[in-house]
Amino acid sequence: MMGEFDFIGRHFRPLSGEGAYDLRNDGAILRPASGHELVVSSDTMVENRHFLPGDPPETVGQKLLRCNLSDLAAMGAKPVGYTLNVTLDPQGPYGEKWFSEFARGLQKDQALYGLSLLGGDTTSTTGPLVLSMTVFGEVPVGQALRRDRAQPGDEVWVTGQLGNGALGLQVRTGKLSDPSGELVRAYQLPTPRLGLDLFGIVTTAMDISDGVIQDAGHIAEESGVKLVLDERRFPYSPAGQAAGEAWHETRLLGGDDYELLMTVPPHRISALKKICATQGIPVTSIGKVEQGTGVDVLGTDGLPLKLTRTGWQHF
Amino acid sequence: MMGEFDFIGRHFRPLSGEGAYDLRNDGAILRPASGHELVVSSDTMVENRHFLPGDPPETVGQKLLRCNLSDLAAMGAKPVGYTLNVTLDPQGPYGEKWFSEFARGLQKDQALYGLSLLGGDTTSTTGPLVLSMTVFGEVPVGQALRRDRAQPGDEVWVTGQLGNGALGLQVRTGKLSDPSGELVRAYQLPTPRLGLDLFGIVTTAMDISDGVIQDAGHIAEESGVKLVLDERRFPYSPAGQAAGEAWHETRLLGGDDYELLMTVPPHRISALKKICATQGIPVTSIGKVEQGTGVDVLGTDGLPLKLTRTGWQHF
Repeated sequence: MMGEFDFIGRHFRPLSGEGAYDLRNDGAILRPASGHELVVSSDTMVENRHFLPGDPPETVGQKLLRCNLSDLAAMGAKPVGYTLNVTLDPQGPYGEKWFSEFARGLQKDQALYGLSLLGGDTTSTTGPLVLSMTVFGEVPVGQALRRDRAQPGDEVWVTGQLGNGALGLQVRTGKLSDPSGELVRAYQLPTPRLGLDLFGIVTTAMDISDGVIQDAGHIAEESGVKLVLDERRFPYSPAGQAAGEAWHETRLLGGDDYELLMTVPPHRISALKKICATQGIPVTSIGKVEQGTGVDVLGTDGLPLKLTRTGWQHF
Repeated sequence: MMGEFDFIGRHFRPLSGEGAYDLRNDGAILRPASGHELVVSSDTMVENRHFLPGDPPETVGQKLLRCNLSDLAAMGAKPVGYTLNVTLDPQGPYGEKWFSEFARGLQKDQALYGLSLLGGDTTSTTGPLVLSMTVFGEVPVGQALRRDRAQPGDEVWVTGQLGNGALGLQVRTGKLSDPSGELVRAYQLPTPRLGLDLFGIVTTAMDISDGVIQDAGHIAEESGVKLVLDERRFPYSPAGQAAGEAWHETRLLGGDDYELLMTVPPHRISALKKICATQGIPVTSIGKVEQGTGVDVLGTDGLPLKLTRTGWQHF
């Protein structure tokens, strides 16, 4: 448990909530509301791979939390709590000040998204900083959104904008400029699309973490259908488009968007638009579901794209 | 999710159970039985710190799982499922064969303890192998065993034997011999004390992971009492005692025991003994609870021990 480092105890104990026993126990208590079950999602971020030592420490914790919250959003779950495992090199650059800011970012997002820390541990390594988080949400029993219910005739919709996160990483590594700061913001601080009551509206949902085309492939495979996407309708941001043609593939295949990709029967599209409008979340139709397998993409010239790779491989 | 490595998908998918969507989703579903709530425990093991590259891969996964299960046992919870985050160096020694055996160990323990894999992820690092696990159990609502209910007059009891795990580590690093193999076995493959129905019998319980004296200190602090332990009654194993006087401090202060430390009112001791006997688990009285604070230890000569350190610091 956290107590292994005093300074982590100091920073993390204030984040603990109901059922966490002030982080003094080895286990925490978690009870879903009546008529609900839990959704569990788990993700790891590794120094130099998922974040950079120069990233603001506040946003590192927020990004890890938000990527996990995005998985909850994709299943229609409401956040409840999380555990955090920190593995760090005591000789490394991550000390008192860094963890104080890291915890402050988590504190902010706990307030914003309504969850608290339940437990975890801290261990030492001689390697890069490793942060693992497991997040819990609750969903009405049997109602969790799935990936295997898309039907031919459904439309394919997506929230927000595409490509910014992947371009933001290129900015951070000095390969691209970003006068508005919008791309870096999207990379460092994605917005999980929580709070949309999509039950009974969408047939499938997932969050876009590996690029819209690769993730569309998961829905196609698990639903036994083909998804046909039209790049001319992709909601690229002005900042993303300003990057120019050289960044087309990054923008298209990207990753790190954390928007929701959904399939929706035509008669429920007005309900989808209404719910997204209530939350101020843009939503765009980018294609349709057909009989068949896999994902077809029409490029900006309206012709089928030949893809050499379809998304982001973590490894 | 696991899909990031094909070989991990191959090894880990067979471990997934109900609610895990075959590890194809970003989230899993977890529902406690009616009238129950969940206990959550999370632990990390790091190469060279919590296990050694030469340890049998089967036991590495089992040890990680069992340490977490021991936390569930300490709260009286029944195992349900777990998530696993693997962070490894693709250039390192942990490949196909290692993970195949690692997964086989988990498979065995899943069958033994009745739980299954819900999800997790795999990421890469340039450093040591990091394995984080979050384990879920269920407990009747409001019944989880606690650390803050010890009363003056209670006796202090402990399951199994003490000191073997810490001595086993010394054997593994070549500092001690272990003709019976008992010490190494205790270090590599601890036994979580699950399945004891301790509700209404003990006033507090915790598992001994940092050494009995340090862990007794947690009960003392959280219950606002003093624990007086008598080393003459400590259940040291024959193998542990055979190590001799040079290993006295390791045996006493140890760590890695994963036995249950409990406080029990005198009139419930016969019930405790009966329940442990049913499961074939040895149980020993090692002291008493008094008014006051902290932990007093009477040494093998019956005189108060002066302790320079009280247990195992992870860091």
